[in-house]
Amino acid sequence: MSDRNTYSFAHDGQSITLHSPTELPNASGFLWNSQMMINMNCRGYAISQFMQPEPAKYSYAPNMEAKTFMQPEHAYFSHHPGRFFYIKDEDTGEIFSAPYEPVRASLDAFDFVLNKHNINWVIRKLDIEVQLSLSLTVDKPIELWTVAIKNLSDRARNISVYPYFSIGYMSWLNQSAAFDSYLNAIVATCVTPYQKVEDYPKLKEFKDKTFLIADRKPISWTANQKAFEGEGGLHNPCALTNQYLAKEEAIYETPVAVLQYQFNLAPQISKSLKLIFGAAKTNDDIAQIKEHFFTTRQENRLEDGFTDELKQYENYVNSGKSNINIASPDAEFNHVINHWLPRQVFYHGDVNRLSTDPQTRNYLQDNMGMSYITPSLTKQSFITSLSQQLSSGVMPDGILLHPDAELKYINQVPHTDHCVWLPICLSVYLSETNDQSLLNQQIPFVDSAKTQSVKQHIDLAMESLIAARDHRGLSFIQQGDWCDPMNMVGHKGKGVSAWLSLATAYALNTWADLCEIYTNDHDKTEYYRKIATEINEAVNLNLWDGKWYGRGITDDNVVFGVHKDVEGRIYLNPQSWSILSGAANKDKICSMLDEVKQQLSTPFGDMMLAPSYTTMRDDVGRLTQKHPGVSENGAVYNHAAIFYAYSLYTINKGDEAFSILKKMIPSLDDAEKRGQLPNFIPNYYRGAYKQFPNQAGRSSQLFNTGTVAWFQRCIVEGLCGLKGVKGELVIYPQLPSHWNEMEITRLYLGAQFNVKIVRKNINEMYIKLDGKKLSNNIISNIKQGKSYDLNISIPLKNSDNGI
Amino acid sequence: MSDRNTYSFAHDGQSITLHSPTELPNASGFLWNSQMMINMNCRGYAISQFMQPEPAKYSYAPNMEAKTFMQPEHAYFSHHPGRFFYIKDEDTGEIFSAPYEPVRASLDAFDFVLNKHNINWVIRKLDIEVQLSLSLTVDKPIELWTVAIKNLSDRARNISVYPYFSIGYMSWLNQSAAFDSYLNAIVATCVTPYQKVEDYPKLKEFKDKTFLIADRKPISWTANQKAFEGEGGLHNPCALTNQYLAKEEAIYETPVAVLQYQFNLAPQISKSLKLIFGAAKTNDDIAQIKEHFFTTRQENRLEDGFTDELKQYENYVNSGKSNINIASPDAEFNHVINHWLPRQVFYHGDVNRLSTDPQTRNYLQDNMGMSYITPSLTKQSFITSLSQQLSSGVMPDGILLHPDAELKYINQVPHTDHCVWLPICLSVYLSETNDQSLLNQQIPFVDSAKTQSVKQHIDLAMESLIAARDHRGLSFIQQGDWCDPMNMVGHKGKGVSAWLSLATAYALNTWADLCEIYTNDHDKTEYYRKIATEINEAVNLNLWDGKWYGRGITDDNVVFGVHKDVEGRIYLNPQSWSILSGAANKDKICSMLDEVKQQLSTPFGDMMLAPSYTTMRDDVGRLTQKHPGVSENGAVYNHAAIFYAYSLYTINKGDEAFSILKKMIPSLDDAEKRGQLPNFIPNYYRGAYKQFPNQAGRSSQLFNTGTVAWFQRCIVEGLCGLKGVKGELVIYPQLPSHWNEMEITRLYLGAQFNVKIVRKNINEMYIKLDGKKLSNNIISNIKQGKSYDLNISIPLKNSDNGI
Repeated sequence: MSDRNTYSFAHDGQSITLHSPTELPNASGFLWNSQMMINMNCRGYAISQFMQPEPAKYSYAPNMEAKTFMQPEHAYFSHHPGRFFYIKDEDTGEIFSAPYEPVRASLDAFDFVLNKHNINWVIRKLDIEVQLSLSLTVDKPIELWTVAIKNLSDRARNISVYPYFSIGYMSWLNQSAAFDSYLNAIVATCVTPYQKVEDYPKLKEFKDKTFLIADRKPISWTANQKAFEGEGGLHNPCALTNQYLAKEEAIYETPVAVLQYQFNLAPQISKSLKLIFGAAKTNDDIAQIKEHFFTTRQENRLEDGFTDELKQYENYVNSGKSNINIASPDAEFNHVINHWLPRQVFYHGDVNRLSTDPQTRNYLQDNMGMSYITPSLTKQSFITSLSQQLSSGVMPDGILLHPDAELKYINQVPHTDHCVWLPICLSVYLSETNDQSLLNQQIPFVDSAKTQSVKQHIDLAMESLIAARDHRGLSFIQQGDWCDPMNMVGHKGKGVSAWLSLATAYALNTWADLCEIYTNDHDKTEYYRKIATEINEAVNLNLWDGKWYGRGITDDNVVFGVHKDVEGRIYLNPQSWSILSGAANKDKICSMLDEVKQQLSTPFGDMMLAPSYTTMRDDVGRLTQKHPGVSENGAVYNHAAIFYAYSLYTINKGDEAFSILKKMIPSLDDAEKRGQLPNFIPNYYRGAYKQFPNQAGRSSQLFNTGTVAWFQRCIVEGLCGLKGVKGELVIYPQLPSHWNEMEITRLYLGAQFNVKIVRKNINEMYIKLDGKKLSNNIISNIKQGKSYDLNISIPLKNSDNGI
Repeated sequence: MSDRNTYSFAHDGQSITLHSPTELPNASGFLWNSQMMINMNCRGYAISQFMQPEPAKYSYAPNMEAKTFMQPEHAYFSHHPGRFFYIKDEDTGEIFSAPYEPVRASLDAFDFVLNKHNINWVIRKLDIEVQLSLSLTVDKPIELWTVAIKNLSDRARNISVYPYFSIGYMSWLNQSAAFDSYLNAIVATCVTPYQKVEDYPKLKEFKDKTFLIADRKPISWTANQKAFEGEGGLHNPCALTNQYLAKEEAIYETPVAVLQYQFNLAPQISKSLKLIFGAAKTNDDIAQIKEHFFTTRQENRLEDGFTDELKQYENYVNSGKSNINIASPDAEFNHVINHWLPRQVFYHGDVNRLSTDPQTRNYLQDNMGMSYITPSLTKQSFITSLSQQLSSGVMPDGILLHPDAELKYINQVPHTDHCVWLPICLSVYLSETNDQSLLNQQIPFVDSAKTQSVKQHIDLAMESLIAARDHRGLSFIQQGDWCDPMNMVGHKGKGVSAWLSLATAYALNTWADLCEIYTNDHDKTEYYRKIATEINEAVNLNLWDGKWYGRGITDDNVVFGVHKDVEGRIYLNPQSWSILSGAANKDKICSMLDEVKQQLSTPFGDMMLAPSYTTMRDDVGRLTQKHPGVSENGAVYNHAAIFYAYSLYTINKGDEAFSILKKMIPSLDDAEKRGQLPNFIPNYYRGAYKQFPNQAGRSSQLFNTGTVAWFQRCIVEGLCGLKGVKGELVIYPQLPSHWNEMEITRLYLGAQFNVKIVRKNINEMYIKLDGKKLSNNIISNIKQGKSYDLNISIPLKNSDNGI
């Protein structure tokens, strides 16, 4: 298979095709709606969950799995939940399975095709073509599958097709499954395990049924996993050696949904099948789904509900478009920026990682990204967040999005950074909308019904940050700042964070900027700027280590993240944010960038720290117990890397910033190393580049990450340089040196800007708006509904004097 | 394989051999010590845990498993933790695996041999014999394995042997594994996942290493599960296609421990190997294990530590002998009673189900069983239990056995029956020991350091039972009595339990009996008897349903477990305990027994209730949500069945009682249906005999059950009729009608009774002690250290006038 690329983009960038089931075995796509998420890997394994309101399963592991958050580098195994299609040539007895698991037969052709709104495969083997397609509805916890089997040969064929949908170990309390003829569905039923009587009222409302319903009557079925598999094993199940499945029920046994279809296929003829798999509360609900999806009502429409729902879902996903499109010399980069990045930003902003209690910083940043897609949702999220603020100004660790939601997992650990994100994220919303009315909106507090304006809320948040500092003026870290597992630097109440101090200064400056633009409160503006300067000075005094900034000072007054440290010698975040906050002068920046390049740079991006810790450091915390190169312990942690990229754009380091963006996206050169397609940006790639070179670059496969909102911001404000400021567009594109031109379509305040950027032999940028040269780089008086042609000429060589 | 039995006992009954890996695929043996438990199934899968102090894993599932109690009918799957031995004929490339998983090759011979102190296999395939043996130490969380490979052919062979020990998904925080040449071991290391800083001090003491150490140097190894398996799958791993394993480490990847040995075996020659697998905190600990187990110290002994530890473990297990042995006409029954039942009783009493917070009722009953083995431990358990009693008399839901222990799972649900078990279990201890000093022992309370005597503690317990009754004199059930999931009968505070009322009456009578024997407090004695009578009358008045007793009265005053109920029409427990308490008169008993036979009897024992509930009844509770026929929802729940058997012995229904005992033990006739060997008595067999006949009889495979203490009691007091009463032996054997003789060895108060029972054509039992006829059925003045010959003649026909 070395004669072709591992994967390819469609010409329009809207689909990505992987051509092998073994080269990137963990490559996957994900689909979501307001009720569920499914992460489907190329070989047929699935991770799926729906909300009731907490994440629940309808396709379970073969054992009783822990309820927990999504784990990086998810481990697959034979009986991992999957969606398999066994194919049997009834004339020869040969079998294989699509898409690849569990038979793992060597296939004649394999295409795993990711569209934005569905996930597909085209498989060929034994002169049979199997086409699979998975999509979702807009709002139901069900998967919509279509299967087509085609006889590619010149002879008639008898083919059995067995859709095998894992149901798994549902419950020790009660689990069973059988075929329901009326519904034409396998229905598995369980009772979610519990022991306390007070849990019953909630649990009795659960969707405790898993069903697989088909639009055609199967010739046989089985619902008993063990009986299906027999001694043959999942790769060679005994049940397939018989002509028909044995119609075994699961009676307090592990359920499965297997249907059998027999197709007599003339040469070149195909047959197809529609299947729905998901969760339901009652059989009546399933009957309604049958009625809705599989009945064609001639009076209303030509198509059945199934086809209609597919279209609605496609429309839903396509509604997640950003307000910027690019046509650069880098086609793959264009595809990602125009399709896959906004898709991921939309996912974050629209369903908030399908959590009922997203971490406050995640919720705010995810919605910052939504400013580029549906800013009305960003606004709503601000209102929701601020209504959960304490009247002291402190923000909670998570934002509760459901009446039954509770703070779980990491949200039970107190973090100190949440207020920082309010002005930062608000600034993007205001940049994109100029909606100053939000600042005056009256909102209550979680502990007080008395309302105050958004501006007052943020003032209070800033005051709480200002107050939470030590005698040196540095911010206390308590049990963590942005970095969750940095939980023992300040757990005794004394330790401080360089990053949080700098982030506080940046937040204060950002808020001062907004106050300057939108309020007349000059005293406040100056006050915030003065404190920011004090903080920057305190950081420079206490945490500049000679060549870079340290990461913090422990409870026992030990500065760490400094040259004396053998491990965790340099952290990326304080460097990036010293640029954003204005703490670092030009000399410091030069020195820092050099050190970042020397110590943190890898072919897969910049590591969050180096060297990775190999033993517990109990004045830093849990971070140091993570595996070296994994996650916060020195991975290429993309959220940190994108902060760095953004900070570089703010000092006109467009080449360096672009290099970081590029390294975040898997390419044909390194996809096998990363193990991922460029359909999303993962939360990390393995770091510890010098310590564990063989694993370095491997994707976490986690598509939940604060990275993408900032990536989108980097595109708009940095690369394209089309930033909104108080309703005007400020133009400062920063193309990488090797690009000589780029076209952009930018929507802003209801107007469309058709932008062409060309390098010319000039000394200074030169801008024409609708053919007329601008005297500066600001477009004012933008008219809603109007389309503008913007021609930007830039010098051949990027300037490097922005600092 | 139909030419031989599924399994066989060794002549002495001390070992049980299963001859097929597929006929009873879930058949298993278990081993334990004070630190760990392993349940090893015949095909090579293992469930193992050790205490630190809560149950922890060293061999994990392939995903992140929920921490929970042991589940019935445990589900196995390909990547379930196991201990496998791949065998490869290097000359032909053929492979198979011992004992059976994961290759599942058809074997020429398969013996799974359970001894009391170890678990063994003898496998033959490709003219190779593989002998495996697993044992434990007395006090360490490690498994001791020996492997012998023999060339059965007449040609020299080159054989590779690959011990494969699952390590699994250890932790998302940190996991890795590699071979350590110095230790000659694969060592996997993880950090137990956590998020809260306050958990760190405890977690840092955890044994977070899993190791496999060998007494021979392997020729190669791998520690990376995925790399070992490749695309071939666990049944045909890619790694075996190469000459040598590739020495791959696991670097934040799923670890495994695979070693490779190559043996050149001359005809009929065998080679062997010793392996140790388990948990450790540090590499130094592993080094000490290596030193201790694999070094032969000539000065001290001829054998290495490994062999020595095996012997110590054998001695430990063999110390768990009961004080009664039988030689009846039923050889299999003898084997179980003489070896496997006391082994299981000993397990319960010695390590308390390896729980740090056993349910109070379980702890007391398990230790009741220990009265027949090591009564000093029973005594200690009484003292421990009563020191956790509230000064109000109420017993807690669980007994904490470790300073760090907390009430978990079901112990967080309030139950009302715990006090009942105090006099009942104490009566057995006193019966066996006549140790009246215990009654005067001073013990504090959990909420008061002021001590009171055991007698006073039990008086208080009885008063708390007496007080917890309604206006009718019936016992409130709150959120459950003996039946945990009967949690909604009385959760509003009004519902009452027939069983608990009867059990209270029985407890009061039992305590009155003890008071009569051991105290001069005649007023108290009469007082307790009077209340017991009142309770019995209240039950007869309110809960006699015409042909049997109902189970209780709900919060809304609905009597349930009665003829009007379509489901849950009759429950076994109230019938049994109405016999024990004296509530049921002869007519009622006749009627009840008839109904039990009609409605509850199955070939696998008597069901706990019938018909099993098929839908939630929310005035009964969670019990009705369990799968029909499973566990408390109408299984042959052996704990309930043994109560019934015991009650039958108390009314001289020896045939009926014996029939229940027999049905608890898998036999050659029904082992396949039960899916279990007669090495233990499970907590249930599937019931719902009429509703789900195909599954009826299937074993839960759970060997934790209060059944065995009562089974032992039935043997001593019922079948053998050799009950201790105030230091005397009261003789009343109840042989089943089809037995004409039985020999018994009974130890009592340090004396040994060699008993022969023979049926003769007489009308009344006739007893000779050392050749001298006794005037009654009581042996007094028993001399410690003396051996007595006891000849008992009984009539040909069992009398039926005991009621």
